[in-house]
Amino acid sequence: MRRVAVIGVGITEFGELWDSSFRKLGIGAGMSAVSDAKISADQIEALFVGNMSAGRFIRQEHVAALIADYSGIARDHIPATRVEAAGASGGIALRQGFMAVASGLHDIVVVGGAEKMTDVSDIESSMIQSSAADQEWETELGATFPGLHALMATRHMHDYGTTREQLADVAVKNHRHGALNPKAQFRREINRDVVLRSPMVASPLRIFDCAPSSDGAATVVLCPLDMAKEFTDSPVEIVGSGQASDSLGLHHRKDICTMGATRAATERAFKMAGLSQKDVDVAEVHDNFTISEIIAIEDLGFFPKGEGGKATEEGLTSFDGDVVVNTSGGLKARGDPIGATGVAQAVEIVSQLRGTADKRQVKDAEVGLTQNIGGTGATAVVHLFRRV
Amino acid sequence: MRRVAVIGVGITEFGELWDSSFRKLGIGAGMSAVSDAKISADQIEALFVGNMSAGRFIRQEHVAALIADYSGIARDHIPATRVEAAGASGGIALRQGFMAVASGLHDIVVVGGAEKMTDVSDIESSMIQSSAADQEWETELGATFPGLHALMATRHMHDYGTTREQLADVAVKNHRHGALNPKAQFRREINRDVVLRSPMVASPLRIFDCAPSSDGAATVVLCPLDMAKEFTDSPVEIVGSGQASDSLGLHHRKDICTMGATRAATERAFKMAGLSQKDVDVAEVHDNFTISEIIAIEDLGFFPKGEGGKATEEGLTSFDGDVVVNTSGGLKARGDPIGATGVAQAVEIVSQLRGTADKRQVKDAEVGLTQNIGGTGATAVVHLFRRV
Repeated sequence: MRRVAVIGVGITEFGELWDSSFRKLGIGAGMSAVSDAKISADQIEALFVGNMSAGRFIRQEHVAALIADYSGIARDHIPATRVEAAGASGGIALRQGFMAVASGLHDIVVVGGAEKMTDVSDIESSMIQSSAADQEWETELGATFPGLHALMATRHMHDYGTTREQLADVAVKNHRHGALNPKAQFRREINRDVVLRSPMVASPLRIFDCAPSSDGAATVVLCPLDMAKEFTDSPVEIVGSGQASDSLGLHHRKDICTMGATRAATERAFKMAGLSQKDVDVAEVHDNFTISEIIAIEDLGFFPKGEGGKATEEGLTSFDGDVVVNTSGGLKARGDPIGATGVAQAVEIVSQLRGTADKRQVKDAEVGLTQNIGGTGATAVVHLFRRV
Repeated sequence: MRRVAVIGVGITEFGELWDSSFRKLGIGAGMSAVSDAKISADQIEALFVGNMSAGRFIRQEHVAALIADYSGIARDHIPATRVEAAGASGGIALRQGFMAVASGLHDIVVVGGAEKMTDVSDIESSMIQSSAADQEWETELGATFPGLHALMATRHMHDYGTTREQLADVAVKNHRHGALNPKAQFRREINRDVVLRSPMVASPLRIFDCAPSSDGAATVVLCPLDMAKEFTDSPVEIVGSGQASDSLGLHHRKDICTMGATRAATERAFKMAGLSQKDVDVAEVHDNFTISEIIAIEDLGFFPKGEGGKATEEGLTSFDGDVVVNTSGGLKARGDPIGATGVAQAVEIVSQLRGTADKRQVKDAEVGLTQNIGGTGATAVVHLFRRV
């Protein structure tokens, strides 16, 4: 397999962008990444698009062809492929792009992720998001997506003594980081009280434990590492890629405090990279709910099982901690346009490793990680990046 | 890149399968392919699933994880990836599987395609199918999917003198072939009169010019060619893979009688394979409408532009013709469970090259081709297969 580098990144503002269409967002992030990579459109050999549910959010399937059309690359009949794994759609799009370059099939590949969520009602949006879980055995029986995560939180609190305040600390940290990110949906710091007094969604999770519905798009440009220096002085190599599945329904898991898919994907990515957890300086993890970040930093091997809440409370996942988690603000504060999220994570990590993350820069960051989840953990994809 | 072989195939019956769920169909085709490949489930390293719109047909996204879960391979955390390009979803899933093996990332890869279409009303199904076209500029303005193909047919008849009878001959041939296929949705021969007297859908296309709504699933198992002999005495190599895009909307094309994406994908696949059209003995092409097969056999280079109708009328695309097209019955008679179709095409070609196609066997078939289309041609994917 050939070695693969990221040579360009682009991202739109995330938020409730009522004046932007899906195609406008996709093209915006794409143009920005192509410009950052200093390539011309006719050098692009393939496009991969991560998207969860344009079929229901905007009644449009076939969205990779749509983006190829409106970006102009369909004129050269460039192959365009949409991939989907609910919340992990962006991360698996990145993996397909990685594979396309690693295999030698294509040289310059664009990977985008996009979702336009706010054109439907809140209740419709909630139903669509729940289609990431098992429709027949969870959703139709009344389990909502926040409800399933509430089960995980309750069990984690019971088994490990994780506290309600520690859950809040995840949101507080990610809002603090997000306040430094000009593209974030929420750029305002909050404190524990704000979280603890916010409306209940599914006990014990309150509204400030939940990532918002968002519109947005993100893009990265990949090429073989040995070509990367033609385009940029600061290429970032993708040194590890791991993907894994687990049961779609939560009720089929032996332990709902652990995401087996994250653990398997993590092991595969580190093995491919020849690195270990202590090498990682900065990580973007899938905090669609506060409990998800606590479970993630445990399953990724940064902290022992059960100690994620404590580590967060002690500040070990913020600046000057062991590993800085979600400098972008994470899904909680940067926003979570579902299909865009996994690609947005890569955009943030590449910015960190290039040293261009401005006020949220992690000093001397050399190795970064992304962890992107679909459903309640039925899909996990982990990537490792290294400054060249 | 490593060379890639198909070592197993499986397919369900296609039809209105009201007593089968999406997951039951997916598992059925998968088990059958795994059994045919003589592998055990724990040898599977990755799963790719082609599916167009489970989000709307059965309100379930994240279907690759669903199939991984219910097939048992999620227990080993096997990566599972859904890909979508409307009608070409199955074909691009095959291409992702090909890439995963060619790259060296995985050895044994399962590629499935599935769609469960008959759980919604006919009008809802029609709206979902139209989401393969440009929602903003075609569908919302009243263009239906049959309507867009009717425009193509009308123009083809005007420019090249293609006749209404020649369109009918596509359906007559494919029903004749389908009658020999025990898995086909329609296993009854028809004649020109049946087509010409059938109800009008969108002039000049009548109901017998249109592929049906279907439920069904199909699966192939891939591995590196140099491992294939461990599993089977009759491996079939995938010698060429080409994918291409075009404008999503028909109104952006210079010529609606030609699918530029088919032409580009064809050129790429033949170039990779080092073969030419005259080498092809048998082909499965995307006859979602009768006009589509006529355009396909022209754009694939089997016949000059404008002569597809005449070639069909003269029997050049049936047994004893230049190239036998749609021995399975095609989308028209075998059925068209959208995401399954591209994989079902591969199943048929592999059966032909193995010499196991029974009553519809093409004598001494050595090289086969599949052509799978998304929308009105915004995605095309062409594969070439060769008996080893």
